Amino acid sequence: MSELKSLADYPQSMQDEVSKVRQIVADLHAELPRYELVVWTAGNVSQRVRHPEITDGSADLFVIKPSGVAYDELTAQSMVVCTLDGKLLDGTRAPSSDTAAHAYTYEHMPEVGGVVHTHSTYATAWAARGEEIPCVLTMMADEFGGPIPVGPFAIIGDDSIGRGIVSTLSESRSPAVLMRNHGPFTIGKDAKASVKAAVMCEEVARTVHISRQLGDPAAIDQQHIDSLYERYKNVYGQ
Amino acid sequence: MSELKSLADYPQSMQDEVSKVRQIVADLHAELPRYELVVWTAGNVSQRVRHPEITDGSADLFVIKPSGVAYDELTAQSMVVCTLDGKLLDGTRAPSSDTAAHAYTYEHMPEVGGVVHTHSTYATAWAARGEEIPCVLTMMADEFGGPIPVGPFAIIGDDSIGRGIVSTLSESRSPAVLMRNHGPFTIGKDAKASVKAAVMCEEVARTVHISRQLGDPAAIDQQHIDSLYERYKNVYGQ
Amino acid sequence: MSELKSLADYPQSMQDEVSKVRQIVADLHAELPRYELVVWTAGNVSQRVRHPEITDGSADLFVIKPSGVAYDELTAQSMVVCTLDGKLLDGTRAPSSDTAAHAYTYEHMPEVGGVVHTHSTYATAWAARGEEIPCVLTMMADEFGGPIPVGPFAIIGDDSIGRGIVSTLSESRSPAVLMRNHGPFTIGKDAKASVKAAVMCEEVARTVHISRQLGDPAAIDQQHIDSLYERYKNVYGQ
Amino acid sequence: MSELKSLADYPQSMQDEVSKVRQIVADLHAELPRYELVVWTAGNVSQRVRHPEITDGSADLFVIKPSGVAYDELTAQSMVVCTLDGKLLDGTRAPSSDTAAHAYTYEHMPEVGGVVHTHSTYATAWAARGEEIPCVLTMMADEFGGPIPVGPFAIIGDDSIGRGIVSTLSESRSPAVLMRNHGPFTIGKDAKASVKAAVMCEEVARTVHISRQLGDPAAIDQQHIDSLYERYKNVYGQ
Repeated sequence: MSELKSLADYPQSMQDEVSKVRQIVADLHAELPRYELVVWTAGNVSQRVRHPEITDGSADLFVIKPSGVAYDELTAQSMVVCTLDGKLLDGTRAPSSDTAAHAYTYEHMPEVGGVVHTHSTYATAWAARGEEIPCVLTMMADEFGGPIPVGPFAIIGDDSIGRGIVSTLSESRSPAVLMRNHGPFTIGKDAKASVKAAVMCEEVARTVHISRQLGDPAAIDQQHIDSLYERYKNVYGQ
Repeated sequence: MSELKSLADYPQSMQDEVSKVRQIVADLHAELPRYELVVWTAGNVSQRVRHPEITDGSADLFVIKPSGVAYDELTAQSMVVCTLDGKLLDGTRAPSSDTAAHAYTYEHMPEVGGVVHTHSTYATAWAARGEEIPCVLTMMADEFGGPIPVGPFAIIGDDSIGRGIVSTLSESRSPAVLMRNHGPFTIGKDAKASVKAAVMCEEVARTVHISRQLGDPAAIDQQHIDSLYERYKNVYGQ
Repeated sequence: MSELKSLADYPQSMQDEVSKVRQIVADLHAELPRYELVVWTAGNVSQRVRHPEITDGSADLFVIKPSGVAYDELTAQSMVVCTLDGKLLDGTRAPSSDTAAHAYTYEHMPEVGGVVHTHSTYATAWAARGEEIPCVLTMMADEFGGPIPVGPFAIIGDDSIGRGIVSTLSESRSPAVLMRNHGPFTIGKDAKASVKAAVMCEEVARTVHISRQLGDPAAIDQQHIDSLYERYKNVYGQ
Repeated sequence: MSELKSLADYPQSMQDEVSKVRQIVADLHAELPRYELVVWTAGNVSQRVRHPEITDGSADLFVIKPSGVAYDELTAQSMVVCTLDGKLLDGTRAPSSDTAAHAYTYEHMPEVGGVVHTHSTYATAWAARGEEIPCVLTMMADEFGGPIPVGPFAIIGDDSIGRGIVSTLSESRSPAVLMRNHGPFTIGKDAKASVKAAVMCEEVARTVHISRQLGDPAAIDQQHIDSLYERYKNVYGQ
């Protein structure tokens, strides 16, 4: 990537795509406070932009939120563009402090096109106990295909958060991982799919929590979980 | 119904009614996120349209939400029209994946004019434990005439959800059933009444849950439940 | 009151006051869904209108919400006017089904100028257990001067709800009573004060509930409760 | 301060700053209901205005909310200006009944430029049990650098609330203190920072509460808390 020093060094079609994705990512950030997944400036959404010619992913980019900016003030232009080693390529602001975790995920999971991180209340409450969310709801079988797993304790500063996300999600059908004492990260084919996973993760975290407060929710047989998961992936939607 | 291949084969008065009901059903969908009963594209509302001449119900239709469409994007025209065996008759989109359950309910409960399905949090939490909601609130005696019952575990793919709804509600005064590990289905004389039942179902599920967290709510005598239920059906409202 | 058959038989100044109060009561209803104290058509606010000459209260009136009307559709003109024996004097709609309870309260508590009834979640949860809310918050000492008491189980149909409200509140500093298995009724010098009491009742019901979930909140000494209550009545506000 | 009897006696540059701060403080009050930290007229925000020449703080002022005014009716002009001994210097309304606590904090903590007080639900629930919030979330290590401490029981009327705030916060990294049976007070370099601390205080109070409902959240090692706290103070944001 040595010759790709600025966004202008990328193909025009990719620059055009970056512009579109900046708008998409800026707009999707509004879903986070709308679904009460974040307060103040917490939380971030990113989306990958694939290089049209270098298809091994090494020249892909991603668009992410700047650090510590209020949700009301986010615009397409304020979004920043990073390379997959987490370096700022384009933008006037410092990228989100979770940029390294997003970058590591894109670099090591080539099928992932979007990543979301929040501290949504119920998912984070499970994460603080280090307890996976059991699959006791049909909507959870649909969306997650089983339990939502817990990732390791890791702190900002190196690639330990990214490694925790990738190692946990690589062994699970779930697009969501609860990072210990921290909060959920979710992935998807694009930013919108990862936002949906973040919304559904909090929804099932809350519903299973509340069910457990007064007793034990009934388990769903694995064969039914498998059947629901397959149907949902193949039949649901338009 | 063999000659009724498209909406144009139905009487004009029924086609006009379908147009009106498309608007009603589209508008009522807005109540679901407003009362926080659904997230993302979950949940659905339908309303029956009765054939003006074939009064045994065999030629009735119902209007329902398309599958996997965002609440903000629902319009009257995007609503789809189905026959009581759950087949799409009119509309440009695939019907809700819960269409078979709605269809079975209309087919086997001729007095039902509206059906609603949600995954509302507290009702679904009771459903995950497979526990009926006891009648400990006067508003619950008013609206439900007793406990809100639990239906069987059933998964999408055949008519087992529909059979579970009909068999459970046929033996209860309640217009709501908590389908195990799944969520509530509610019925009413029309879509609006079934939306009201969905709102009240979540309201009493939440209030009784919270009351139970710190002890045992007091039971209401059956004679008082009966008295409240009768009065509410006959006196309340305009 | 035999000659006072219609609103036109009352002094002009009182008819003018009724018009103003219709607007006040209609507007205050909007606070109930805003503070999430009600769903659908539940809940009601009323305000007394005093007769300018007959000062024993026997000719007072009150303005209240019509029965079963959606909050979005409430207007000043749709509010109904009743005598203190709970009969409709003016208005085109049936009065709230809780009218008898409001009427009884006005008749037997001459200092009361406003009454509110809701099924707000946390207050109703305490009511379903028949448990008073202990005074463990300084804001509760301020507003309620002690615990929020529980009233008897009573059902609609005679004056038993009204008697329960009056007998309980007559022996308490609290402007709120939790009617068993039913929900809170609050009083105030006018409708606005009783709406404030309904908002604060739910606020303290929720906060004390949540505090109790993980242990025992500390009691406040009676002398401090007395001191806070006196200061708040005499110093707070403009 | 004997010669400084009115705002006109202060330097023009300070009068101009007071005008700006009135707007800032009025605007920041809107964040309190937006984040559901307050109901009705509860809660208050203030910001210090430093004297440009008398740098020992003795001539500083602060701008605070008037007492018992609805959030919808707050304007820059309605904000009141007080001296650090808590006396009203400028404004047409009575200052917040918590003014003495704000004043004491500014007088004894010269680095503090903003103070917020709320009765936010979860923070107040911990305060009612007199229990500090343990540091079990990385976002809590970031923002609070450890547990959120509990301050003494104190009632309005002298400087005992202010003394409790100052003595507790002086021995803690946390910008928030939970005053027993009362609620949180937060501080910051300006009013906005103290509002952020109030929002984050409620967020972690809620998340840790919910986590604790179903078991014990895992502690975070002190070395990791220290590392997160240092990074957040030095790197986060723009």
